[in-house]
Amino acid sequence: MNTPSEYIANNKDRFLSELLDLLRIPSVSARSEHNNDMIHCAEMVASRLRAAGADLVEVCATAGHPIVYGEKIINPNFPTVLVYGHYDVQPADPLELWNSPPFEPMIKEGKIFARGACDDKGQMYMHVKAFETMMQTGTLACNIKFMIEGEEEVGSINLGKFVVENKSRLKADVILISDTSMISMETPSLDVGLRGLAYMEVEVVGPNRDLHSGVYGGAVANPATILAKLIASLHDENNHIAIPGFYNDVIGLTQEERSDLNAAPFNQNEYNDDLGIATEWGEKGFSTLERTGTRPTLEVNGIWSGYTGEGAKTVLPSKANAKISMRLVPNQNSDTISRIFSEHFNKIAPPTVKVKVTAHHGGEPYLTPTDSIPYLAGSKAIEATFGKKPVPTRSGGSIPIVALFERELGLKSMLFGFGLDSDNLHSPNEKYDIFNYYKGIETIPYFFKFFAEMQKES
Amino acid sequence: MNTPSEYIANNKDRFLSELLDLLRIPSVSARSEHNNDMIHCAEMVASRLRAAGADLVEVCATAGHPIVYGEKIINPNFPTVLVYGHYDVQPADPLELWNSPPFEPMIKEGKIFARGACDDKGQMYMHVKAFETMMQTGTLACNIKFMIEGEEEVGSINLGKFVVENKSRLKADVILISDTSMISMETPSLDVGLRGLAYMEVEVVGPNRDLHSGVYGGAVANPATILAKLIASLHDENNHIAIPGFYNDVIGLTQEERSDLNAAPFNQNEYNDDLGIATEWGEKGFSTLERTGTRPTLEVNGIWSGYTGEGAKTVLPSKANAKISMRLVPNQNSDTISRIFSEHFNKIAPPTVKVKVTAHHGGEPYLTPTDSIPYLAGSKAIEATFGKKPVPTRSGGSIPIVALFERELGLKSMLFGFGLDSDNLHSPNEKYDIFNYYKGIETIPYFFKFFAEMQKES
Repeated sequence: MNTPSEYIANNKDRFLSELLDLLRIPSVSARSEHNNDMIHCAEMVASRLRAAGADLVEVCATAGHPIVYGEKIINPNFPTVLVYGHYDVQPADPLELWNSPPFEPMIKEGKIFARGACDDKGQMYMHVKAFETMMQTGTLACNIKFMIEGEEEVGSINLGKFVVENKSRLKADVILISDTSMISMETPSLDVGLRGLAYMEVEVVGPNRDLHSGVYGGAVANPATILAKLIASLHDENNHIAIPGFYNDVIGLTQEERSDLNAAPFNQNEYNDDLGIATEWGEKGFSTLERTGTRPTLEVNGIWSGYTGEGAKTVLPSKANAKISMRLVPNQNSDTISRIFSEHFNKIAPPTVKVKVTAHHGGEPYLTPTDSIPYLAGSKAIEATFGKKPVPTRSGGSIPIVALFERELGLKSMLFGFGLDSDNLHSPNEKYDIFNYYKGIETIPYFFKFFAEMQKES
Repeated sequence: MNTPSEYIANNKDRFLSELLDLLRIPSVSARSEHNNDMIHCAEMVASRLRAAGADLVEVCATAGHPIVYGEKIINPNFPTVLVYGHYDVQPADPLELWNSPPFEPMIKEGKIFARGACDDKGQMYMHVKAFETMMQTGTLACNIKFMIEGEEEVGSINLGKFVVENKSRLKADVILISDTSMISMETPSLDVGLRGLAYMEVEVVGPNRDLHSGVYGGAVANPATILAKLIASLHDENNHIAIPGFYNDVIGLTQEERSDLNAAPFNQNEYNDDLGIATEWGEKGFSTLERTGTRPTLEVNGIWSGYTGEGAKTVLPSKANAKISMRLVPNQNSDTISRIFSEHFNKIAPPTVKVKVTAHHGGEPYLTPTDSIPYLAGSKAIEATFGKKPVPTRSGGSIPIVALFERELGLKSMLFGFGLDSDNLHSPNEKYDIFNYYKGIETIPYFFKFFAEMQKES
């Protein structure tokens, strides 16, 4: 029988081409015109799990997009790892900024360019192939369960209900998730913190119809101007978020934690050059790593009002809209923040307009303890394949469902990401390095091995 | 031979159906996909002028959309009226807010609903039918020339060149334009002031690509947030425009002029109710009529950035754009204002973004003297058909070309508008009352009659 490394080497071309098939399905969860693609994608994931050796594989219907479940119980006395991932992807627009079509994967300089290449099809599928490898080489050291959802990019709307209704089926010892990044392949890292999310949509309504800006301009509040003023007021002159109570529940890092965090390899000039910006921006008194990893933030994700086409149209628009989301840090609560945002926005709006604030979806912040077995097993696995210990880091991103897993299933999540910050997640030209894909498939079996050993010892 | 009134009564159904034909052509000058519609529309105007009795009718090519010319010289010693109008219309979007398709005219409760019904096809075509009426009843008292352009809604880009190159062909004693509004049919009014226009487009560029708002949020300037801050700073807390030097050339009205203006019939509550707003808005210290008629204003006509589709997308956008236009009052200059806007916008932008400001098109403000022959003839014509003298008012709108006519042709323009502020110009459900259409056709011949008489006497 082959070793896992030999098996991976012998099957690497197939491992890659199977991923490309998955990437060809435009499984955009936010757009209802892709509902059939979602089903198609869920079914492909299910059939790949069956082929890899999973039992009881099921495409579970929800009120939204289906969840794929599968498992392999090798011994009821062995520890169980529940792998969570998602097969849905972000919308691909703006399409014109892609160098190749988002759903026709293109390989260039060792990288796979496609929507979902990294987030999360590429990272999720590493687990399917690692599972196949362990099955085929007789090395599976834990029971394994898969829960692959199709609504991560729209707030995991129906996953909560599924988790609550399937507590016994989902019984496990840890949840393993590959949906985050490393500093680099030279400096492997493990994410120990996730930010929470509160995602709001605001609408400012002025006159009951679009008006001629010459006839009415200057005498009627322009909702676009008012919205700009409201948004402008959300950050003060030091770029602190100026919503009363916003920071109430934030627990500052200790001086030691800040020092550790800022010791991670980071070059501000390279960062700026990569992004094409002259200077960084952010909350006064904090470094870039602190701003993205440890501080709550507020960003305008979209804004629109009036005439946005070619040429000139002298309109005073009837309404103006924006999507505004906030990243939260441990001890902040998504519902609380959504509520105080909404109250504040309504309060600061002048009486000459009407304001409507709705919450899209939220998620809670999360921290992984670095002295926990999952972290130690993950660290040892990385050391086995990278030749060096990973650095613990805090990601700026959010996987809202992680807090729910802890609450409902009593399970810690282990973030085992192999992406890079430069992977253009949620942006045009998303990519995933083929090297990282294989490295993930190679590293995951070590996690199972070490996790099983440490659980037995404990 | 019929009197003009009899002729109009006998032909009113045809006069209406001919206008509807014109409204069916989607002559949107701002959109290149309508270039063929523009030609089609120009040719229809030309053939209608010929049918009405005009000579030397020509669809004159320009670098953009063509200009339709036609004339009837009955006696070289008679005064000449040059009728100016435009056959192009504003874009119709947002389409979903129209109750009936914008280019399928719908008659409801005595009103024609269609894009261009009032601005300016309906008002321009009154002149063609008034001309026909005068020809068929032997009452044409002046020579008449028509210059109907196709680029008014995009800044009359090529009309200036045409005017300069056709000075002798365009020789006349006055320019007559129906492209403005009256207070109401019960309170007829004549516009004596037009505001100028400076129309700018701004782009704020942050990072070189759309970013994941979790990974980068809080550490990179968000162009949508920055644009909101820049726009917010353009009006101070009293809604004065906060661009240094903006008011330098504004000449305030005398106390008497202000009193006269504010004596015009106006009900703020009805105004607010019509627009569905709780309270008015505007520059502190001025009434609504002053704000729209006599004060310069700044409006956001459009703004867009990031994700504007269904659902949530956690993107930190690479750029943000806005269209911003300013209405100018007499003695302000469009080029000067465009320049100081641009300088100011560049100056206030923080170094962490790049800003690009471009000027779309401008136009100069204008005033018609109320003791001039054209005004007096117009006033007497209104009195003849409405039974009361018109009130002189100042429109908030702009017809940028009027200042050019004065400069290049040495001609005053007489604004002879029969629209209403409630006609939804540049908005969904634009309309024109059939009553006003016929009233215009009936009134215009009186203008010709009185203008000829007064010119001979002078």
